[in-house]
Amino acid sequence: MKKLKKALVIFSGGQDSTTCLGWAKNRFTKVQTISFYYGQKHSKEIEAAEGICRFLRIEQKIIDISFFGSLVDSALTHSGNVNLKHKRLKNLPASFVPNRNAMFLTISHAYAQTIKADCLIFGASQTDYSGYPDCRDVFVKTIGKALNLGSESNIEIITPLMKLDKRQTWELAEKEGIYEIALRYSMTCYNGTEKINPWGKGCGECPACKLRAKGFNEYVRSKKKN
Amino acid sequence: MKKLKKALVIFSGGQDSTTCLGWAKNRFTKVQTISFYYGQKHSKEIEAAEGICRFLRIEQKIIDISFFGSLVDSALTHSGNVNLKHKRLKNLPASFVPNRNAMFLTISHAYAQTIKADCLIFGASQTDYSGYPDCRDVFVKTIGKALNLGSESNIEIITPLMKLDKRQTWELAEKEGIYEIALRYSMTCYNGTEKINPWGKGCGECPACKLRAKGFNEYVRSKKKN
Repeated sequence: MKKLKKALVIFSGGQDSTTCLGWAKNRFTKVQTISFYYGQKHSKEIEAAEGICRFLRIEQKIIDISFFGSLVDSALTHSGNVNLKHKRLKNLPASFVPNRNAMFLTISHAYAQTIKADCLIFGASQTDYSGYPDCRDVFVKTIGKALNLGSESNIEIITPLMKLDKRQTWELAEKEGIYEIALRYSMTCYNGTEKINPWGKGCGECPACKLRAKGFNEYVRSKKKN
Repeated sequence: MKKLKKALVIFSGGQDSTTCLGWAKNRFTKVQTISFYYGQKHSKEIEAAEGICRFLRIEQKIIDISFFGSLVDSALTHSGNVNLKHKRLKNLPASFVPNRNAMFLTISHAYAQTIKADCLIFGASQTDYSGYPDCRDVFVKTIGKALNLGSESNIEIITPLMKLDKRQTWELAEKEGIYEIALRYSMTCYNGTEKINPWGKGCGECPACKLRAKGFNEYVRSKKKN
């Protein structure tokens, strides 16, 4: 049974947030999405997000925070090889965008107050977290606490994928009835390549594609076994 | 003696952050500022900030986050009487901008990583905090912890005014040699009125002017006594 609650899904158009969108649609009476253009080198992700929202008839707010890309060091927003290590944080991948998830959560939390949403749905996962510290549960919990404190709000940040790996995320997508959409229409690839593969669109070479393909292959193998 | 450290001052051009700028200049070998245009109804505050930085020959980064004003309910960014209560949060003033300080701190913390600043200087005060929950120490400490966790950083957020009232802030400005600049050039007024008063520029009617004038009068009286 659906809860009489409104959820705002932070929606990039990737596999994870598409799965979260399906998850939220099955649980909340009202679901809206918020998407960010943050100076990514390609706009394919946001195009995928728009297409999925149109298809599912879900209200979407798109926020342009492209100024942010010029403030931080990242191979996702500047020229640079996404397969290498981060310029400043040598133990992190080059694709890390400092404070990106803090930005997403701060703006989404503000917008949730305006539209009177009860919760934010955020597709972070610390299992397959690619080395991003802002995908960890402790970060999400701490910033959620700060944002509620600073605005006298009580908005819950729900992370349905936090403890799932990519194989389990495919399984969840299937269970929530969003599998076909996640597979065909979501865009995870750092390079925005639209080449069609068994595991969906993508270059197949970047770390995001490799992670997605690996999870998909594990999912297919485990389905064959059962 | 100055610490061999770099500080980034969050600088609105108001009395508080001007005092913080003077405080920081006396303590750090390198000081830069970051200012925000967030869809305020007037641009006088940011003009004051620019003028003070030019005068003191301090490098300033101005960030336009005016998109943010349209996302939130506030009399500072929309039409509305700044003297009334906030539309959603009835126990807060209408001038409250939800998640504004969270935005300022998140972006400044990201930029501090880029320019390799060791700390952020932030002029929040919970003493004369006008009822803003995002000026409280517990908020600043919690979001500071979250931002460091999320980016594997160790940037300290220093709040020199946290426990000072407005009278004490005038005293601190004097002690740090920034009193004349704070008095003549800083802009606190919500309405951006440039009328000249004994306590500086402002309309004299809005809550920010009243607080500034009250603190100034207390400061002047306490100086006469001693």
